Amino acid sequence: MNPSASLIIIGNEILSGRTADSNTREIALELSKIGISLSETAIIPDDKESIIETLERLKPKYDYVFTTGGIGPTHDDITAQAVAEFFGLPLELNEKAYREIKDSYLKFGAEEFDEYSIKKMSKLPKGAFLIENPVSGAPGFNIENIYVMAGVPYIMSSMLKSLIPRLKRGDAIISKTLDLQNIREGLVAEDFEKLQKKYENIDMGSYPFRNGENYGTSLVLRSSDLKSLSEAYGDLLRLSKEKSWT
Amino acid sequence: MNPSASLIIIGNEILSGRTADSNTREIALELSKIGISLSETAIIPDDKESIIETLERLKPKYDYVFTTGGIGPTHDDITAQAVAEFFGLPLELNEKAYREIKDSYLKFGAEEFDEYSIKKMSKLPKGAFLIENPVSGAPGFNIENIYVMAGVPYIMSSMLKSLIPRLKRGDAIISKTLDLQNIREGLVAEDFEKLQKKYENIDMGSYPFRNGENYGTSLVLRSSDLKSLSEAYGDLLRLSKEKSWT
Repeated sequence: MNPSASLIIIGNEILSGRTADSNTREIALELSKIGISLSETAIIPDDKESIIETLERLKPKYDYVFTTGGIGPTHDDITAQAVAEFFGLPLELNEKAYREIKDSYLKFGAEEFDEYSIKKMSKLPKGAFLIENPVSGAPGFNIENIYVMAGVPYIMSSMLKSLIPRLKRGDAIISKTLDLQNIREGLVAEDFEKLQKKYENIDMGSYPFRNGENYGTSLVLRSSDLKSLSEAYGDLLRLSKEKSWT
Repeated sequence: MNPSASLIIIGNEILSGRTADSNTREIALELSKIGISLSETAIIPDDKESIIETLERLKPKYDYVFTTGGIGPTHDDITAQAVAEFFGLPLELNEKAYREIKDSYLKFGAEEFDEYSIKKMSKLPKGAFLIENPVSGAPGFNIENIYVMAGVPYIMSSMLKSLIPRLKRGDAIISKTLDLQNIREGLVAEDFEKLQKKYENIDMGSYPFRNGENYGTSLVLRSSDLKSLSEAYGDLLRLSKEKSWT
């Protein structure tokens, strides 16, 4: 069994429609490569009660709970505080985090130190392990199976890279896609279902697409069982030929 | 109080990273215009138990629960079945849905009728109200406060348009943004927090951005109280001048 994961996207800017969430996709792709399956994402507001409630719900269900967002210097950044409360830990200045942020500011030539902000971002639940942030200094952190990262995508990405080597690996999840041009999804539904029944351990999905005048259906097979995946894909190619889908 | 809403995105393709979710953003923006606040999105797999569990959790909490995904013709499309089970309703062929899909197929010149698929998409929980789909025929549906739409973004959009006039309206939520060029978020944090404390009914967020060499911070004020929003934004502009942020 591959390790399981869920993701909490903390951010009013996603729920207002100001910003499209791209973290789910990035995290899902990176986790797939090391055989961790993302099973659920919760997008919730910058609200302490919501964060705590969601942690309570997801922590016992998954091997990993990742969060993004809410660890910056402003008043709407309340993730560290919420996680501390969730664990019943005090929030205190983390000396290592403080130094990392200060060093990063110096490195990038910041003239003013905005001590208030550095202190805010250094306040972490007692005993948290840091997640390195090579981009902008302020680290993420980890307690038990909860991993807290920044919300800004390029910063989140850099944290995820630091984090990946520390996670348990499963078998990489591979996907095979067959694009059928000018074939409506409905035409393949019955046969595709039969194929799914034959290969129960393969996750099979069908996705209509449209590009201007062109339309079609993408059939996607996913599994960490490479042998079974190849067989199923072979069957799909034969089926597609037989039915003149391609 | 504006009506509240949550959204369930049903789709393995989002959780695998194959596809980025754009429905949250589209739905959030459209709902804001008519004064409905999106408070939570759950992205979950094409799995009946997950759908039922999520409906159980969200239905009592929000005025509206929207879902996208899982209403096509293939075996991974199980939303109608899950919603029927959730309500304890039989799943049966909806004559009106059947005719709408068939008419739409004729209109678009489909040569083959794939009866199997049309029937699959016409099977809805008994007594469901249809949500018109001008793009591809197969309708969404609504029972109580649950609104089921397609997952493919352009189809979802067209359903949402049919749906909007049927929803209760609140006061439109307006946002005002001030972009600060070459100002780090940390430099504004302390003053921005003071402003938030002065205007508690305004949702204030701070978002760092980077475009190539340029960076900066966007300060966003949101509210459906236009008068208060204008005052707060006026204060922010004065503050920004005083501190030489802009």
